[in-house]
Amino acid sequence: MARKKSLDEGPEPREQILACASRLFYQRGFGETSIRDIAEAVGISSSTLYHHFANKQEVLHAIVSRFMTDFVDATVPTLRDTTLSPTERIRRTVRRHIEFSDDNRPALLVGNPIRYALDPAQREHGIKLQTAYHDAVRDTIAEGNRVGEFRVPDVSITTMALLDMLNGIREWFSPRGTLTRDQVIDHYTAITLAILTPAEGCATAS
Amino acid sequence: MARKKSLDEGPEPREQILACASRLFYQRGFGETSIRDIAEAVGISSSTLYHHFANKQEVLHAIVSRFMTDFVDATVPTLRDTTLSPTERIRRTVRRHIEFSDDNRPALLVGNPIRYALDPAQREHGIKLQTAYHDAVRDTIAEGNRVGEFRVPDVSITTMALLDMLNGIREWFSPRGTLTRDQVIDHYTAITLAILTPAEGCATAS
Repeated sequence: MARKKSLDEGPEPREQILACASRLFYQRGFGETSIRDIAEAVGISSSTLYHHFANKQEVLHAIVSRFMTDFVDATVPTLRDTTLSPTERIRRTVRRHIEFSDDNRPALLVGNPIRYALDPAQREHGIKLQTAYHDAVRDTIAEGNRVGEFRVPDVSITTMALLDMLNGIREWFSPRGTLTRDQVIDHYTAITLAILTPAEGCATAS
Repeated sequence: MARKKSLDEGPEPREQILACASRLFYQRGFGETSIRDIAEAVGISSSTLYHHFANKQEVLHAIVSRFMTDFVDATVPTLRDTTLSPTERIRRTVRRHIEFSDDNRPALLVGNPIRYALDPAQREHGIKLQTAYHDAVRDTIAEGNRVGEFRVPDVSITTMALLDMLNGIREWFSPRGTLTRDQVIDHYTAITLAILTPAEGCATAS
């Protein structure tokens, strides 16, 4: 089905395709959305869509890559900013992580586990981006330990716990729920700092 | 395809079907496993399998229900056991949650988001079981607050954070990794207690 890109097509249709596809995948699921559905939503023919993407999986990969790249750009520079204290870097990252996930809900494809539809090479690309973020969080926690701001017994496992906790929010947070997004951010910031600075007697209690 | 259950079939083939199907779904994915594959793995004919389950989705639902029911049975009585302190109940639940998820990996269908293949009524049944566990954790944290063992500013949000953190483990924990399961349990117990008993100055720091 792959065709060559036509030279007179600008970047705009590509953007529209990604926006419409991401909304359809989010609403209906990846399996239930056809190339034709996407083309109709954009208002182009299926053959025009095939100028841009060889198949539905490529559309999915473009959406996931874009999201992950933007997420890394939004977080890693702060985590690597040595002019800020580790506490401040983590504090800003908790906020950024929650805000970004909430703002990009369709691209994050909540509830639609369609990332599994990616092929191994496409998945690997996503994993590399995830790793960049993960490593930056881990290094910041390690630095906080070194400078005495944090007291984390195992930096790697605390990093996993923290990221799983933050990633879970998108599955249940609703702007129409009882808590505002800022309240969620404040609570998660407090929880994060409690994890990073456990009361002396607590982390070692058995 | 649904047929009546034959009277001379005991419960054993049913157990074998669930065990084989859960392993196949785990290894190959739900979509890539046919009723015939399951029957072959059990060593029965497809028509015998249809005596027990009307279709593949019913097999999936039986696996998920069994797992969730067993999980609730393994955790909720401890969480509701008022002869134990809230701290002790949470401590045992963290261990149970991690051990149970690890022991039932195929049934948990790690990495295969096939629970989405369930129909709404089947999913709702699973959600009811999840809620029983969630509510028992939340009530235990609330009680810990009341008796002064915990200092949690928002019980509901802390419950979500804690469960997301514990549920995340199954995605990355490997028995062949650098940490043993007991080490993971010890670290997560310490992290959990740090969340439930934040240092006074910490939860309110801004």
